[in-house]
Amino acid sequence: MNFGMVRYLLGRIMVILSALMVPSVIVGLIYHEPFSVLQGFLITMAICLVLGLLIGNKKPAKDDFYAREGLVLVVLAWIMISIIGSLPYLLSGEVSSVVDALFESTSGFTTTGASVLPIGESVLPRSLLFWRSFSLVVGGMGFLFFIISLQPTIGSRGIFIMRAELPGPNFGKLESRVSKSIHILYAIYLSLILVVILLLRIGKVDWFEAILLSFGVAGTGGFNILPESIAAYNSQYVRMVIAISMVVFGMSFNLIYLLVIGKFKQFFKSEELRWYLGILFGAVILISVSVYPLYSNIKTMFQDVFFTTSSIMTTTAYTTVDFRQWPMFSHIVLLFLMFSGGMSGSTASGLKVARIMMFGKSIKQELRRMILPERAVLIVIEGKPVNSINQRSTTFYIITYLFVFLILLALISIDTKNFNGAFNAVIATLNNIGHGLDLLGPSLPYSELSAPTKLLMCLAMIMGRLEIYPVLLLFFPATWRKT
Amino acid sequence: MNFGMVRYLLGRIMVILSALMVPSVIVGLIYHEPFSVLQGFLITMAICLVLGLLIGNKKPAKDDFYAREGLVLVVLAWIMISIIGSLPYLLSGEVSSVVDALFESTSGFTTTGASVLPIGESVLPRSLLFWRSFSLVVGGMGFLFFIISLQPTIGSRGIFIMRAELPGPNFGKLESRVSKSIHILYAIYLSLILVVILLLRIGKVDWFEAILLSFGVAGTGGFNILPESIAAYNSQYVRMVIAISMVVFGMSFNLIYLLVIGKFKQFFKSEELRWYLGILFGAVILISVSVYPLYSNIKTMFQDVFFTTSSIMTTTAYTTVDFRQWPMFSHIVLLFLMFSGGMSGSTASGLKVARIMMFGKSIKQELRRMILPERAVLIVIEGKPVNSINQRSTTFYIITYLFVFLILLALISIDTKNFNGAFNAVIATLNNIGHGLDLLGPSLPYSELSAPTKLLMCLAMIMGRLEIYPVLLLFFPATWRKT
Repeated sequence: MNFGMVRYLLGRIMVILSALMVPSVIVGLIYHEPFSVLQGFLITMAICLVLGLLIGNKKPAKDDFYAREGLVLVVLAWIMISIIGSLPYLLSGEVSSVVDALFESTSGFTTTGASVLPIGESVLPRSLLFWRSFSLVVGGMGFLFFIISLQPTIGSRGIFIMRAELPGPNFGKLESRVSKSIHILYAIYLSLILVVILLLRIGKVDWFEAILLSFGVAGTGGFNILPESIAAYNSQYVRMVIAISMVVFGMSFNLIYLLVIGKFKQFFKSEELRWYLGILFGAVILISVSVYPLYSNIKTMFQDVFFTTSSIMTTTAYTTVDFRQWPMFSHIVLLFLMFSGGMSGSTASGLKVARIMMFGKSIKQELRRMILPERAVLIVIEGKPVNSINQRSTTFYIITYLFVFLILLALISIDTKNFNGAFNAVIATLNNIGHGLDLLGPSLPYSELSAPTKLLMCLAMIMGRLEIYPVLLLFFPATWRKT
Repeated sequence: MNFGMVRYLLGRIMVILSALMVPSVIVGLIYHEPFSVLQGFLITMAICLVLGLLIGNKKPAKDDFYAREGLVLVVLAWIMISIIGSLPYLLSGEVSSVVDALFESTSGFTTTGASVLPIGESVLPRSLLFWRSFSLVVGGMGFLFFIISLQPTIGSRGIFIMRAELPGPNFGKLESRVSKSIHILYAIYLSLILVVILLLRIGKVDWFEAILLSFGVAGTGGFNILPESIAAYNSQYVRMVIAISMVVFGMSFNLIYLLVIGKFKQFFKSEELRWYLGILFGAVILISVSVYPLYSNIKTMFQDVFFTTSSIMTTTAYTTVDFRQWPMFSHIVLLFLMFSGGMSGSTASGLKVARIMMFGKSIKQELRRMILPERAVLIVIEGKPVNSINQRSTTFYIITYLFVFLILLALISIDTKNFNGAFNAVIATLNNIGHGLDLLGPSLPYSELSAPTKLLMCLAMIMGRLEIYPVLLLFFPATWRKT
């Protein structure tokens, strides 16, 4: 374990984090916020700069950096940025509880979008509302890998960080391409955000709201600034812009890159994309059948169902309709979408479509193996045979996920005292959805949960964002052994 | 696909099934039941004999019999015995609904113990109550393999039937031993049932109840004949006899065999046994901590908790206490036990401890692989390294299980209209527990569910008993292809 390198990189991250607070300060200045609010940012930035330069000053002698270091760095960094990100809320005096501030910050960076604060534009000064939503953007797209790619000394070994940080299983082919074109990917990411802002502006959404909404969509986080969520916007145009944007941000950025550079054929050849769209529209059809009797207008029904489906599948959790009133059957379909999540390499969370696809293909292979045990067949994904160990890991991840789910459920049920509440809190955080959406029944607002439960939910959010294993590795002795 | 052989064996099974109805007729005669009741059995036996001899008369020319034939035979046989087993209920006129009779019968042979009839000794004549509980014994211990082992023509190829029928993953070592000693295993099984009956008699339980209770324990089915379940017996001795018997019947019969032939060292060396007892007593401790404030007497608490834990983990579902009043935390622990189930090769259902153990060991392997990808390590179970494909299959089964669970949940929720009811019905049947136990909230009695839902639950029971894949195979074209 190369502690020196991890320490050094954590220092660099702090310095860059302080720079990432500048836009929030500008927002505060634009809206003439009192200095008491802005000082929260300024003090935090000063702390970051001093501490960051202090521990990130000297490059360590040994620069070996492998899977282990990458995984540990990513977890520590996520804990660190969650803590630092909570300081502006606290130091401005706008949030008084340390746990609540940490909750908002973690929820942002993990692209969860859960909140313990009341909902409304006047709850926080705009600079802090901006910061909270901006953290979705920062946490969404391989933030660390971006920072590290700026460090020439790491070079190609950044791959270990990318693997730990980018969600979903990798099937090799696209991975090497990404590391070469990471800056192009970022350019696409930021351009897409800009496009969404402009499209919302065309729909006459106020500048500030348009920016925050597009951040919510881009990070698939979906912090609500209006109590009615997207139902506050009557324009079907605005709703469809958001719905389609969510579908786009639930796609792999590698694929969007292919689209941008004009390789349409390769784009449409992606198996994971077909499964993604297949599950999405399959769910739209199933839910439509289920809610059909509730609607007099088919167009409205389709819009509500499509919005809800894309919002839940991408783990954004914006809402236009109270689907708790929908039949139970549709809730089970939504529950499946909550677990499936978006594509790997997107900002969406959950298990990822790639894993569902692997599972789907494995069923057939398994059945074949039962009746013809002597003939071993490999499954093929994206044109490449998948070896047994990778396949095992992928399916294995799903069980680990559900097992961690159960443990969190048990622990949080001590506080909530009922199943609905605990289920709601766990699915909202471990799947980075944000709102549990009370599919199984009404539950208390997060603000009424105890501090230990909120901290557990923070841990769940980080586990969900980093796909569990890196967090478990911290408790595994071999991780810390000297090489 | 050797259809001739499958047809031939189904015929033989019918003949033996008619013989298995004799004890019920004797019970009816002892209790002087009217001929209208007994005629149900007699007509069924006649049908079985005639049909069985007709289709099982001519041995097919080709006697090849492999994995495929074994799997198909097992599923068809289970469907067939469920249908035939329902005839005595119908033909005696005691149950008027075809679906309800099928439900009771399927519930018996799959060792589920769910019932759509009201509970009470006077609900059915004793011969039918006996038949229902006797079907637990028949369905519990590799009934088919027993029958087929009587056919000298099949011989060693019976292994394919055993694999399809005996629950849990096999790790090779014990399997070959079993096929040699199947008759000894049956002798042990029946002796254990006799021991339980005698122990209950010592506790002054009435003969008929003692027999039915021991059948319930042996098949880990647990049909209730008294509305209060085991709470009706005030004697702590009786309760502990049942609790400990359930633990025993949740153990692998191969292991009990080792115990009987005096190989204690080998018995205690079993890893799965250690995990089984570890999970059982771990759960007792966790639940005790959770329910401690509710009890004034620690001994009573321990007895209730131990009884409940062994009953749920072995999927028997006898109860001595209304644990819906227990804290939510204990419910999540019980939920985990419902999924884990007993040991492989026992009459208990669920995922089986062997799979949980495989999963537990895989976590460590997976973490190691993440930090040291270049060093592949195999996991070792019962002293033997497990190859990657077997490991994949085992973990993969868990996901298939949960996926089927979700689909059944969606379908049954159309009828129940609430999550609790659907969850209850699915966990009770797919895990062969029998009673959903309303852990997540109150639900309707099964008798009020619609006929399609009851049929779905029958399918779920068979899938649970045969571990899903054989049932899926029926819908897989390659199964039916000519060789």
